[in-house]
Parts: sequence; structure tokens; C-alpha cells
Amino acid sequence: MKEHFLFYVPPDEILDQKISFPEEEANHIVKVLRKRPGDVIQVTDGVGNIMDVRLIEVDKNRVAGEVVKNYTSLAEPDRILAIGVIRQRERLEFAVEKAVELGVTRIVLVHSEYAEKMQIKAKRINKIIISAIKQSRRPWLPAWEERDSFYDVLADYKDGRKVIMAHSQEEGTYDWKPDDSPMLLLVGPEGGFSEKEVEHAVVSGAKIVRLGQKRLRTETAACALLTLANLM
Amino acid sequence: MKEHFLFYVPPDEILDQKISFPEEEANHIVKVLRKRPGDVIQVTDGVGNIMDVRLIEVDKNRVAGEVVKNYTSLAEPDRILAIGVIRQRERLEFAVEKAVELGVTRIVLVHSEYAEKMQIKAKRINKIIISAIKQSRRPWLPAWEERDSFYDVLADYKDGRKVIMAHSQEEGTYDWKPDDSPMLLLVGPEGGFSEKEVEHAVVSGAKIVRLGQKRLRTETAACALLTLANLM
Repeated sequence: MKEHFLFYVPPDEILDQKISFPEEEANHIVKVLRKRPGDVIQVTDGVGNIMDVRLIEVDKNRVAGEVVKNYTSLAEPDRILAIGVIRQRERLEFAVEKAVELGVTRIVLVHSEYAEKMQIKAKRINKIIISAIKQSRRPWLPAWEERDSFYDVLADYKDGRKVIMAHSQEEGTYDWKPDDSPMLLLVGPEGGFSEKEVEHAVVSGAKIVRLGQKRLRTETAACALLTLANLM
Repeated sequence: MKEHFLFYVPPDEILDQKISFPEEEANHIVKVLRKRPGDVIQVTDGVGNIMDVRLIEVDKNRVAGEVVKNYTSLAEPDRILAIGVIRQRERLEFAVEKAVELGVTRIVLVHSEYAEKMQIKAKRINKIIISAIKQSRRPWLPAWEERDSFYDVLADYKDGRKVIMAHSQEEGTYDWKPDDSPMLLLVGPEGGFSEKEVEHAVVSGAKIVRLGQKRLRTETAACALLTLANLM
């Protein structure tokens, strides 16, 4: 079955093949799609499964169903994207949404040296990520986190991964052939990474990659880097 | 000289190396950057030149300068992007902005079969394109237009170009090696291209390219396609 809509239900709401839908999904099922008991919809648990689910109860207060078929997906290539926090909220949120569509597995919003002192709205980010996996029919829900130090991000995630830093400066290389190995992708905030951060990344084994000769905004560089990493 | 800001002045405002700045740029120079006579700023005419310009008059009512140095840029690869019109205005505008950053040379907003009946705000699109060339320091101003027929777009632009259509369906290929030849890139609206449109594109020699296994939104597919065409 290939339904247009994919719903998201966290794994802990799925017990013995029975599903109880969270409020937002339930609203969508009842009010927008006007589904009835017996209808079959598709659900992902965000950990690799897409399920055909037959609705049992469809009520304003409760929507429940049972799994009738399960499709297990292969794990996706490990792609951690660390992005410097930028001032314009809609641009940061756009970067998050696009990263999810383009196959990121973990998003790290970093308050790097030149990042803006912005407060991250966790609820918004969660909502955008869930909405993006549904939209793009991805059965894996990427994790995300906020970090205060660029150096800690490198320390925590570089091992076992190719570290790729997008950089608009002349020292970057165009010579990058992405493959399926795990990657930590680094994209600076509006002012870019500081010299100290770039140096530290290089010492940590990062490859400095140029994304064309134009200066790209943070969210554009994030899209481009993930496109190259995942679609080439 | 490598200034952070790049201003845009249309070629007809540049006469005998003298420049009279349009109102919006003049405001930026006077009120935001607080430049004075004698200061040198960088200007593009959108047709391949970046100029160092010494300011002569800096006044609320008039900002003028003279070209002291001219850097001519090589022409960029021909990249026409035709995108189906989508409902959410900010997503369409985002696609336009990103296309400019990623090196599009002409944007065609197409009212294809499944496109939304949206009115395009020409002033907004102009503003976004100008702002994006300034931001990304591109000395070429991409043209744009609105078209009612997908078939006319193909008829007008396919000759002499490789035609590449992004498509999420199984029939698409991953086997695409972009090069510098002129390209017409086609990205459908939310509902995709119609079967008739796809068939017509194929008959016209289009290559149907898949952008990964996920379903990408229109603006994401536009970013990804241009990234692959220009940054690989």
C-alpha cells in the first residue's frame, strides 16, 4: 500500500500491534481526512518501520488502530549536521526542515563563536522535524540537540566519521567524493566559523570543502552539503 | 578589494563611470552603513561586472559615485530552472532565493497542470533576486518570468540545452553526471508534473532524474537539482 499521508506515532504508543494516536495526528485523521473505523492508514514509528494500520476507534477524543502490515526499512547512512545558530528564525527552521528531507540523521544546533545568541524553541524544532519526516515519507526520526561549544561537538562526534566543513574561503577544496561512510557535516553561522574553530577542525581531521565560488547563506550551505553527501 | 557588502545598480544608471544609486541602495549606504564622500564601496551591474566605486555625493536625496576599478567576471554556465507554482508563497520565494544563490541564470515560474492558481507578486520576486545576488556576491542578475504553459517552456528553452526533470517516481534514474553544458532544469509543483507533461518532456529528450528515495518538496528539489548541476 502506498498512501499519500504518513502519520507519526512514537514507539511507546505502539503496544502489541495496537496504536493509540497522539492528539495532533488524531485531529488530522478525524477532522481533515474524515477517516472511519475500518479505514487503513500508514504510520511510521520513526525507528525504521512503516505500518499499515486499520483504524478501530475514530472519535474526537480517541483514535486507535491495529497494525495489519509492517514494512521494515534499512538503516540510513549516518549524517550528523552541525549548524551554527543564525539570527533569522525562519532560516534556521528552514535549514532543519530541509536537512530532514535530505536525509540528516542528527541535527546539532551549535552556539559557535560567531553564532547569534538566539534562544532555540524546542517545540517548534520538534514539530518541524516530525512534519518533515511525514512529508518526505521517512521512517526514521532524526534526533536533534543544542550545544554551546563547537569544540565539544567535534569531540563527541568526530570519531568514526568523516568530518566535512563547508567553507567559502579560498583554502577549501572542491575535491570531495562523498560515499556512504558516516559523516559529521559542519556548516557555520552567518559570520562563518572563527579561525580558531577552522584550525581546530583541521587538526581534528576535517576536510574543508568549498561549495562553489559564491557565498552561500547558512541554510543554503546546509542544503547543498547534504545534497552532495546523500544524492551524489 | 573584497568588501563585505555588494550593491546592485542597473547598467542604465552607470554612465561614463558615474553611478547614481537607486533609492533603496542609497538608503542602505546613508542610513545603515553611514558612508561618507571618498569612501569606496563595491557595486555590481548584474551583467558580469563588479566595480570599486568611490562615493562623491552622499546625501539623503542623492548618492552618487565614480567607478575607480572594474573586475569583469566570466559568464556563468547557462542554467534555466522552471518550477511549478506552489501554494505557500514563502516556499516559492525560498526556492527563488536559493536558486539564485546556487547559480540559476533564469527562473521560470510555470503554471503547470498541477500547479496552484497563485498570483505571483513580481515586485517581491525582483526584490528577492536582487537581494540574493548581493548576498552571494554574484555579478550576474538572473532573469525571471511567469509562464502559463509547461509545453511552451519546453518549446522555448529546450533547444541547445540538456533537459533534466526531477521526478520522485520509480522510473527516474540516478545515473546523471552533470557537466558545464547549458541545462533546462524542471521541478514540478506539489502534485508533481502530470503524466502528460512527463511524457511530453521525455519525447522532447528530457532525462528523468530521481533525487534520492525520499519525496522532496518543490523548493527542496529545486535546491538539490541546482546543487548537483553546479557544485558537483
